[in-house]
Amino acid sequence: MTNEEIFAKTTINSWKLAIDRLDQMFSSLSDEDLQTEVAPGRNRVFYLLGHLTAVHDRLFPLLGLGQRLHPELDEEFLSEPDGKSSDRVSAAELRRAWSEVNQQLMAAFVALPPEEWLKRHEAVSEEDFAKEPLRNRLAVLQSRTIHAGTHVGQISLAVKRQ
Amino acid sequence: MTNEEIFAKTTINSWKLAIDRLDQMFSSLSDEDLQTEVAPGRNRVFYLLGHLTAVHDRLFPLLGLGQRLHPELDEEFLSEPDGKSSDRVSAAELRRAWSEVNQQLMAAFVALPPEEWLKRHEAVSEEDFAKEPLRNRLAVLQSRTIHAGTHVGQISLAVKRQ
Repeated sequence: MTNEEIFAKTTINSWKLAIDRLDQMFSSLSDEDLQTEVAPGRNRVFYLLGHLTAVHDRLFPLLGLGQRLHPELDEEFLSEPDGKSSDRVSAAELRRAWSEVNQQLMAAFVALPPEEWLKRHEAVSEEDFAKEPLRNRLAVLQSRTIHAGTHVGQISLAVKRQ
Repeated sequence: MTNEEIFAKTTINSWKLAIDRLDQMFSSLSDEDLQTEVAPGRNRVFYLLGHLTAVHDRLFPLLGLGQRLHPELDEEFLSEPDGKSSDRVSAAELRRAWSEVNQQLMAAFVALPPEEWLKRHEAVSEEDFAKEPLRNRLAVLQSRTIHAGTHVGQISLAVKRQ
C-alpha cells in the first residue's frame, strides 16, 4: 500500500468503527426501545436514527458520490426537532434506510482513489478551496465521523437504561 | 503542501475541532455547573473533564511523543467510576491539566512529520503491525477524536440544562 492509501483506508476504517458501534446499539434496541429519550425531555433514539440516516444520506451529493437515497427524511429528522409522537416513518423503514445508506456509502468510500479525498467537497467554492485546501472531502468524512460519535455518546445513555 | 501533509493536517484539524468544542463547553460552565450529571445518575461533567484529560495524557507514550504530564489522574478518572462526592482534585486544577495536556499534544502533533502518523503505536507489536498496517498512530488519533466526540454529545446535554 502507498502512504496515501494507508491514510485513506485508516480514515475510512475509523468511520466504519463509528457506524459499527451505532449498528450494534440500534440492533440491541427493540422498536419500542427506540422511543426512549437519551435524557429526560431530549431526543428519542428513534429521532437520532432518522437524523443520522439523513445526515449520512446527504454525504452522497456533498462528496460528489451520487444521488441521495432518502431525501424524504430531511423534513422530519433535520428541519424539525423531535416530534415525539407524530412519527411519519416506521421504525422498520428507518432501520432499512439506515442500513441501505451506510452500505452504499461504504462501497463508494472504498472505491474512491485516495487522492480524491483531498479534493474539494460540493459545499466549498473553487475559489475558497484554492485558499483553504483543508476544506476537502476528508475533512467532511472526519466531521461526520465525530458527529456520529456525539450521538453514540448520547444513545449509549439510553441503551444502558434498557 | 504534499498530499501526505494535507492528509495529516486535515486529521489534526478534525481533532482540534473536537477539542475546541469541548473547550467552549467547559468554559461555559462554572465550577458548580461541572457537578451536573449528563443524565440522571450518570457521569458528572467534572468526571468527564478528568476522564478526557487522562485519556488524552496517555496519548504521549502511546504515540511515542514523550512522557505523560498527569498520570496521577488515572485512578480517579479512569480506573474508578464517577465517585460523585469524593473529589480529590479541584476543578481549577483539572481545568489547568486539561489545557496543558491538549496544548502540548497539539504542539507534538503539528511537529510530527506526516509519514510518522502511519507508523505503529506503542500498544501494537512489530509483528502484529507488519500484518495490520492500519493499526497506526493515525488510527489512534482518530479513535480518540471519536471518543472526544462521544463525550461532546453527552456534555452538551448538561450544558443545555444550565
